[in-house]
Amino acid sequence: MAKKQQEFVTQITPREENFSQWYTDVVLKTEMVDYGPVKGTMVIRPYGYGVWELIQKEMDARFKATGHENAYFPLLIPKSFLEREAEHVEGFAPEVAWVTRGGTEELAEPLVVRPTSETIICEMYAKWLQSWRDLPMMMNQWCNVVRWEKATRPFLRTSEFLWQEGHTLHATAEEAQEETLKMLEVYREFAENVLAIPVFCGQKSEREKFAGAAATYSIEAMMQDGRALQAGTSHNLGQHFAKVFDIKFLDKDGSHKYAWQTSWGTSTRMIGAIVMVHGDERGLVLPPKVAPIQVVILPIAAHKEGVLDKAYELKARLEAAGIRVKVDDREGQSAGWKFNEWEMRGVPMRMEVGPRDIENGQVVVVRRDTLEKEFLPMEGLEAAIEERLQLVHDGLYQKALKLRESKTVDATTYDELKAGVEKGFVHAMWCGDEACEEEIKAETGATTRNMPFEQKPFSDVCVHCGKPAKYEIYFAKSY
Amino acid sequence: MAKKQQEFVTQITPREENFSQWYTDVVLKTEMVDYGPVKGTMVIRPYGYGVWELIQKEMDARFKATGHENAYFPLLIPKSFLEREAEHVEGFAPEVAWVTRGGTEELAEPLVVRPTSETIICEMYAKWLQSWRDLPMMMNQWCNVVRWEKATRPFLRTSEFLWQEGHTLHATAEEAQEETLKMLEVYREFAENVLAIPVFCGQKSEREKFAGAAATYSIEAMMQDGRALQAGTSHNLGQHFAKVFDIKFLDKDGSHKYAWQTSWGTSTRMIGAIVMVHGDERGLVLPPKVAPIQVVILPIAAHKEGVLDKAYELKARLEAAGIRVKVDDREGQSAGWKFNEWEMRGVPMRMEVGPRDIENGQVVVVRRDTLEKEFLPMEGLEAAIEERLQLVHDGLYQKALKLRESKTVDATTYDELKAGVEKGFVHAMWCGDEACEEEIKAETGATTRNMPFEQKPFSDVCVHCGKPAKYEIYFAKSY
Repeated sequence: MAKKQQEFVTQITPREENFSQWYTDVVLKTEMVDYGPVKGTMVIRPYGYGVWELIQKEMDARFKATGHENAYFPLLIPKSFLEREAEHVEGFAPEVAWVTRGGTEELAEPLVVRPTSETIICEMYAKWLQSWRDLPMMMNQWCNVVRWEKATRPFLRTSEFLWQEGHTLHATAEEAQEETLKMLEVYREFAENVLAIPVFCGQKSEREKFAGAAATYSIEAMMQDGRALQAGTSHNLGQHFAKVFDIKFLDKDGSHKYAWQTSWGTSTRMIGAIVMVHGDERGLVLPPKVAPIQVVILPIAAHKEGVLDKAYELKARLEAAGIRVKVDDREGQSAGWKFNEWEMRGVPMRMEVGPRDIENGQVVVVRRDTLEKEFLPMEGLEAAIEERLQLVHDGLYQKALKLRESKTVDATTYDELKAGVEKGFVHAMWCGDEACEEEIKAETGATTRNMPFEQKPFSDVCVHCGKPAKYEIYFAKSY
Repeated sequence: MAKKQQEFVTQITPREENFSQWYTDVVLKTEMVDYGPVKGTMVIRPYGYGVWELIQKEMDARFKATGHENAYFPLLIPKSFLEREAEHVEGFAPEVAWVTRGGTEELAEPLVVRPTSETIICEMYAKWLQSWRDLPMMMNQWCNVVRWEKATRPFLRTSEFLWQEGHTLHATAEEAQEETLKMLEVYREFAENVLAIPVFCGQKSEREKFAGAAATYSIEAMMQDGRALQAGTSHNLGQHFAKVFDIKFLDKDGSHKYAWQTSWGTSTRMIGAIVMVHGDERGLVLPPKVAPIQVVILPIAAHKEGVLDKAYELKARLEAAGIRVKVDDREGQSAGWKFNEWEMRGVPMRMEVGPRDIENGQVVVVRRDTLEKEFLPMEGLEAAIEERLQLVHDGLYQKALKLRESKTVDATTYDELKAGVEKGFVHAMWCGDEACEEEIKAETGATTRNMPFEQKPFSDVCVHCGKPAKYEIYFAKSY
């Protein structure tokens, strides 16, 4: 068995050796994803899609609880729509896919495959919005988007990905800002309580904000290699789009006013974040709340009478308690091989049931995150497993938090910043000048991530240029 | 109130006057759908999307229960893939949207926006399939597809729509045929037990089968105007695609074999079927199982103490029992206006609660399908409502079945066929000759729908050409 284990583990490049190759090995070998035939595309295989379905279910419930409804807007957007908002077209035009022919005819106006849906949704909102009674208008869409990216990696950056995009209209600037921050908070709570990923919340710099937004806010997570991954964004669009798409309403006072708008999104790149935050040398480690299989039951000496029956009986009991369970009763694979395979696939708990366990009225369970083994009585197993799944979640969160703390430094000098971004996040004071930000990026490869809401200045001068400091902010290299 | 009702009803064109305009009025005025900016596209608004979400939930559970897993394959397919299967390219090439530019560069090979995903899935399956142990391979995908249609109508035929497409591989021809028929049966059971739509199941003619299939089976529903709507199809693809995409496996006997394949799909056009099967002169009538709101509670004299509280208390009770409920507490609209609006929107049950009802410990409920009114005690309300929702479902199904029976005729002469397809379905014996089928279509506008599995011949000669009859089959004009 030790030998088999060795064989299995060596399929995955060690993290320390090459983190990037480790990531690719994990996502491909666990069969979460594969490369699509067109450069830069991915195929999300059932095991990866199962994670996405659980993400969708958890998020969708939160969107509905905050008053949003789902809708579906067309994939193909007239070129002229994209061009109406100047910053928006500048940001997106270089990276869209163009439909120029329909059936056998050349199109008079080319269409873009949506890279995001602000413009087409604005066109419809302008038609639907009449009076203050129609506000707020709050919709969300689950769909695919296409961005013609040059350098791609499965989940992290692909020319097509799946996401949700929320789009809301409000009567006042205050309500739009409140919505923007409310949805950022939904993302934070989701990242931490569902994905077990601690995040920094804050506002993006002008340079890093969404093309066409008045302000962008983000949640930023740290991967194990110290790089940042923007895991969700929430934009206050102000009246930028409302003015060019003529989204107006008749207010209570009898006057026509432009609406205030927000949009917010998260995507399948969150799956990449899960892999890079929680994975280890054995492979994937899935947070229990989005694990398609939470407990894998391995019958030991499955040919002996009663073993398989007991395994399926336990499965039925756990499933009745809402736990996602698989019995691995494949023949022709050793128990050791199966242990390794399910560890690689990141199943949060393994359960072993053999003749002696049945005799003793107990099972063996092993936590994926710590590999701790314990005996649990079959009686009351449901509650014991639920409790341990929560412990796995908590353990993963704490481990990620500690890693982030160990790789985040306060910098007051540029040398400290340069050293810090080689390891992880740098917390610093910054002048707010875009040219200074550009210089830091050019010299270090790091970008500004976001500015905490509660600003606690700890230096008077910019970490780079020495001019008066305006913002407390995080810098990091990013995915 | 009578006057208001009058006003409301006249927003919708009477069915008898113009069924097509009635349909358009219903889907637009109920805010299920709107026209998209690009010709032939639709926007699915929250009320329509709510129906789709319930359809997805019910179907998805059935797919998983029959052993399928969801996955996601890329939207953009290389032109060369489409061209590999001769019949497939002939069927789909004239109606695809072409991506010819990505970002700022012309593509060396144009890409098609998927009209269906057989080819790209075959490409991946060929890579993944190695041994008989990998079989069956059974996946489903929920996604958007684009078909550049000339004549479009919301839900029924649009240049983009949402659907699911199942794709499976099997070791033997028998297993593939078994899967094909199993999924057709899933569709039948779903149509009848969830959508309350009776359907005819059977095999399509060679002319009407899917481009590239060995055999296509369908469920066919009758709309109130007597036309057929193909509500789902299941294809046995044989080895047509396996051979051109080289989908092979190492069998137990040590030899390499081509896999046997199926695909099956249903789409948002089912929402159009719901409208056209169950709607009436007041508007939409939603089958309870896919109604986003199953019970609307209207507080009567809502300003009186305790009325609103009671309405929300009843809502909470019914929701706890799994019923979807809305309280309409909008001010500034009369009760009569609200009655009409919710009737138009097809909510299966209306519940009225006023001061006198509270005093008597009862509520008034009105069924949308029959408009029957009854008093129900508040005690045990959950069970009483559940029972009535089932009665609405059963009532809708029976009504649709009776209509279909009244509009289906057996024809042994061509004159009978011609008269019959003006009214509804024609059940006839047919020679099986494609030229004969073409003539019937050219002369009457009717196409063959499908051939019942249990063939019960009732004439020796073809209803049109008089040659020996081969098949019992249905003819109808169709959507």
